[in-house]
Amino acid sequence: MRKIYLEDTPLNEAQRRIANRISFQPQVEIIPTREALGRVTAQPIYAKVSMPNFHASAMDGIAVKAEKTYGADEQHPVRLRHLVDYVEVDTGDPIPNSFDAVIMIENVHQIDEETLEILEAVAPWQHIRPIGEDVVIGEVIVPDRHRLRPVDLGALLAGGNVTVPVFRKPRVAIIPTGTELIEPSENVAEGQIIEFNGTVFAAYLLEWGAEPVYHGIVQDDYELIKRAVKTALQSADMVLLNAGSSAGREDFTVHVVEELGEVLTHGVATRPGKPVVVGVIEEKPVIGLPGYPVSAYLNLEWFARSLVYHYYGLLQPERQRIKATVGRRIVSVMGAEDFIRVTIGCMDGQFIANPLTRSAGVTMSMVRADGLLRIPPGNLGYEQEETVEVELYRPLEQIQNTIVSTGSHDLSMDVLHSLLRKKNPERFLVSSHVGSMGGILAIQKGEAHIAGVHLFDEESGEYNQSYVEKYMKDKEVVLVQLVYRQQGWFVKKGNPLGISSVRDLVQPGITYINRQRGAGTRLLFDYLLKQEEVDRDGIYGYSREAVSHLSVAAAVAGGTADVGLGIYSAAAAMDLDFIPVAEERYDLLMSQAFYHSSQGKELLACIRSEEFASEMEALGGYSCRDSGKVFFSTAMLEI
Amino acid sequence: MRKIYLEDTPLNEAQRRIANRISFQPQVEIIPTREALGRVTAQPIYAKVSMPNFHASAMDGIAVKAEKTYGADEQHPVRLRHLVDYVEVDTGDPIPNSFDAVIMIENVHQIDEETLEILEAVAPWQHIRPIGEDVVIGEVIVPDRHRLRPVDLGALLAGGNVTVPVFRKPRVAIIPTGTELIEPSENVAEGQIIEFNGTVFAAYLLEWGAEPVYHGIVQDDYELIKRAVKTALQSADMVLLNAGSSAGREDFTVHVVEELGEVLTHGVATRPGKPVVVGVIEEKPVIGLPGYPVSAYLNLEWFARSLVYHYYGLLQPERQRIKATVGRRIVSVMGAEDFIRVTIGCMDGQFIANPLTRSAGVTMSMVRADGLLRIPPGNLGYEQEETVEVELYRPLEQIQNTIVSTGSHDLSMDVLHSLLRKKNPERFLVSSHVGSMGGILAIQKGEAHIAGVHLFDEESGEYNQSYVEKYMKDKEVVLVQLVYRQQGWFVKKGNPLGISSVRDLVQPGITYINRQRGAGTRLLFDYLLKQEEVDRDGIYGYSREAVSHLSVAAAVAGGTADVGLGIYSAAAAMDLDFIPVAEERYDLLMSQAFYHSSQGKELLACIRSEEFASEMEALGGYSCRDSGKVFFSTAMLEI
Repeated sequence: MRKIYLEDTPLNEAQRRIANRISFQPQVEIIPTREALGRVTAQPIYAKVSMPNFHASAMDGIAVKAEKTYGADEQHPVRLRHLVDYVEVDTGDPIPNSFDAVIMIENVHQIDEETLEILEAVAPWQHIRPIGEDVVIGEVIVPDRHRLRPVDLGALLAGGNVTVPVFRKPRVAIIPTGTELIEPSENVAEGQIIEFNGTVFAAYLLEWGAEPVYHGIVQDDYELIKRAVKTALQSADMVLLNAGSSAGREDFTVHVVEELGEVLTHGVATRPGKPVVVGVIEEKPVIGLPGYPVSAYLNLEWFARSLVYHYYGLLQPERQRIKATVGRRIVSVMGAEDFIRVTIGCMDGQFIANPLTRSAGVTMSMVRADGLLRIPPGNLGYEQEETVEVELYRPLEQIQNTIVSTGSHDLSMDVLHSLLRKKNPERFLVSSHVGSMGGILAIQKGEAHIAGVHLFDEESGEYNQSYVEKYMKDKEVVLVQLVYRQQGWFVKKGNPLGISSVRDLVQPGITYINRQRGAGTRLLFDYLLKQEEVDRDGIYGYSREAVSHLSVAAAVAGGTADVGLGIYSAAAAMDLDFIPVAEERYDLLMSQAFYHSSQGKELLACIRSEEFASEMEALGGYSCRDSGKVFFSTAMLEI
Repeated sequence: MRKIYLEDTPLNEAQRRIANRISFQPQVEIIPTREALGRVTAQPIYAKVSMPNFHASAMDGIAVKAEKTYGADEQHPVRLRHLVDYVEVDTGDPIPNSFDAVIMIENVHQIDEETLEILEAVAPWQHIRPIGEDVVIGEVIVPDRHRLRPVDLGALLAGGNVTVPVFRKPRVAIIPTGTELIEPSENVAEGQIIEFNGTVFAAYLLEWGAEPVYHGIVQDDYELIKRAVKTALQSADMVLLNAGSSAGREDFTVHVVEELGEVLTHGVATRPGKPVVVGVIEEKPVIGLPGYPVSAYLNLEWFARSLVYHYYGLLQPERQRIKATVGRRIVSVMGAEDFIRVTIGCMDGQFIANPLTRSAGVTMSMVRADGLLRIPPGNLGYEQEETVEVELYRPLEQIQNTIVSTGSHDLSMDVLHSLLRKKNPERFLVSSHVGSMGGILAIQKGEAHIAGVHLFDEESGEYNQSYVEKYMKDKEVVLVQLVYRQQGWFVKKGNPLGISSVRDLVQPGITYINRQRGAGTRLLFDYLLKQEEVDRDGIYGYSREAVSHLSVAAAVAGGTADVGLGIYSAAAAMDLDFIPVAEERYDLLMSQAFYHSSQGKELLACIRSEEFASEMEALGGYSCRDSGKVFFSTAMLEI
């Protein structure tokens, strides 16, 4: 198979190529109007009847002939005879032919059973809803290529359109390829990967108004993939292949498309998202999407979404955009368009955007992202405090109601989040994990509302306070105790290597996994090394950094490390043994402004609640004896 | 039955009452993750497996032990032996236990079948996707009370969650009441009303994540309605009754709720939307919605929507808001909150909001509305050119791509719209009908892009030009010919009254229906009266104004008028006879800036196309012999 190299086609050029090449001829189907929500009209729809189709009373009262009321006033009441000069009508009732106005019941005086008196003349057509007030026969209710909303359905029915001609939804075949793939399962053997991209594609396609057709997993085999594509093309309007879109040994997509049709683009100048195949077979678009989830979803939006809207002849809706301040410097490469997932915090009314991981393999970065920052090809990135425009992934009001949490990770934050939402459904808490020192810096820069910190000071023998005093000189902040927690060694069940102290780690053949610089657990480890006078160079694996307790536990459980330091609950989650080393204080650092805000008060109420204490202590390795206590406040204000 | 009067409860007070009174206890159901799009999580969801659950290659290349590469550079290439020092790996392959780094295939030189050479050392863990890079076992994937998006489904599956616990959707029973109601049909007898509100309610509820349960029409009978409510309450979480929510003779809702439970609110201080019943039966909300569509949909949003979000414990998403300039003065009443449907035009980058009809009975005003303007109770309205905030009903980018058309209505505008959308799917054309003079004033004020005009000047014997010269002194505008059209008398089939000239209209017993002041057809009628020296006071019905050709035709077809003046196609639509009176010129007035804009060019291309001419002439009564011709230009620029 001849080698094909990826191009660096500009994204908009690649989009233009396929849009110009494909001309969909959507079929029309007639469906019941009641089931037409979200469907797209195939022609302008005209009213077949008028609504109302009779003159109707707009009030509860009496129908009269206006002429008969002329001259009536307080001095000259006019009497009306039942069935001759008036009839009773309720709102919505037809007006009999001989009458042409309605008088409200409040303005009528009963004289006897057959006679009423009025004190005011009325104009013809007063309080009458004329024929066709709502919808007039023959008028256009909705134009063609219009996506039907709830009110449109009402107007269509009002105009006598019981059915409506709409475009058949475009059928989009989804073909996952990969010998390592398995259907979703709780039991995943090593080397297996759960196929989940197909579900994400299908869900997006549903949202855009297409009909996803899931093909089932195909092995990495040229002939099998080719056969799957040919089968799919029999009924589909578009085919998506995932993955195998790059230029590697087992990347068959580009070759299959080339054999069966024409490759328009192989590779776009974006990061992430570069390795995409855009082609045409039998006049239908065939898109080879990359395997990495983030690359796949971005390409899905760039190509599949725009083709679905192209099919209907509709404008693609845009995401809401806001201006935000860059919290941390963001570097971009020349020549490629960068798409950076960001979190957005609303701090004192200002939006602060911070980049999430740029790895295209991290689905969770899409889950956690509040927005997407697009950096044009000629731009080298943004400095801290620059203003940028961000496309929102979450509604603005959610972002405004979100407490941004950073610093060290602890499971207590998850429990707290859950409790906060239960008590205050409109609030959200979003956490990122940058270690305790990172948390202090984030509070200093105003990037986050709260930061979890557990920094041991060797000199004072205390937690956190000395660090806050040092780094928060000009800030009014508060240290609130969240939990005490056990730190200890993570080892395989039964502790086969017999580890009990930091001295045991220098034995030959023992691999350690460390935490990243700035993590409180790393400081604790360094303190232990110093206390026991162990040289860090003697620790094999000292330089390998994991970013969370769970990652450390996962490495030990996975066998790539023998031991790591972390909290009890992470060891328990991974079914590891835990050898206690120290109890540490895990505090929340926050500005005094936040502490006194309504969000802050709600959060504190949760921290101080009995529910929080009982849930935490049930996890094991935690104590809530001081939860919610203010340990330190910079400005010594009354808290 | 005792009389109950409507209150004027402030809207937010009424909302608070019901929200505080109802505490939903949603049931939890476990459903397949693949089918969970849009569902709301009942608890935080943790990863059950790590993704990947093995160390995986992030590149196509070879897996090596990093140590073996140390010291390699251009001068000191390092040779690696197959299966001993390296193995081939593709992206996603597991890294065998003895290796700890990956070198990209591009950086490897093949020496022989068994030997490779590298020129650069690599660090441990280079190009390796560690266990759990995507999702780490035990981490929170999504919090509770989270509405699942496509990416969330991917992350849930990646973390081994094949099923997910979600809240059962709230079941909302919809009970339409009314003896005049019929199920949707094309055949509507006089006095019958198509039940369409229920379909609109159901569609909105679907969009909000509820499960609508349509009950079927119930007659206006106290006992029948009561029974329907009791039946619905057996399975529903909320009941909607429509209509009968006011205080009239046959408005039973408030009495039924009072008998079975408790009425919290009867009447809110809003216009429209006042007559609503909000109550509680068996701890479930029961909402009596007004019959007028606009009132019903607004109340549905105020109460049913907020209760659906309350059920899930979710924040209600807000509509996008923009600042707009008021195009025409809007008057409001003290003491009530006004909700004005508006159209929004984007004129030279500025948004201009103009009120639509305020009648609560006009469903089409909801279809046509671009947004909603909320006027607080203490506010008397807005003057022209004031800036207001408007909630958008249509996406902003649609509004920005919309050509705003006003003036006189003609079917050619519908044909033009359809053609424009076919040729330029991203464009929209929105028409409102204010008559020819209204159209000229709108162009003068910059409220619209184009205006349809057909104003006959008695003195010059010409159409349109003299009016434009008079009213557009300082404006650079263009008159573009759209169509010639036949005006004539609308009469019943066979012309039973033998009408052929304006003189016949003064015969006793003949009822005329006129057009509104400023309409070109009205000017033509006045001209005919003058020519024939007929006194307008002799015309019975001269003062009754209809706002469109179709409305005039509907009045004649409905028998409330004997004759009206209008265009051929409207007579044909209503199956009336048409007696030609005159051919008139229907032009489009537009600014020269618009004429030269890309929108303007697209529109002109449609007007000058053969498709337009053939579609118009097929309608009958039209000629396109000059369509697209520029008849007049104020500034005498080269057009």
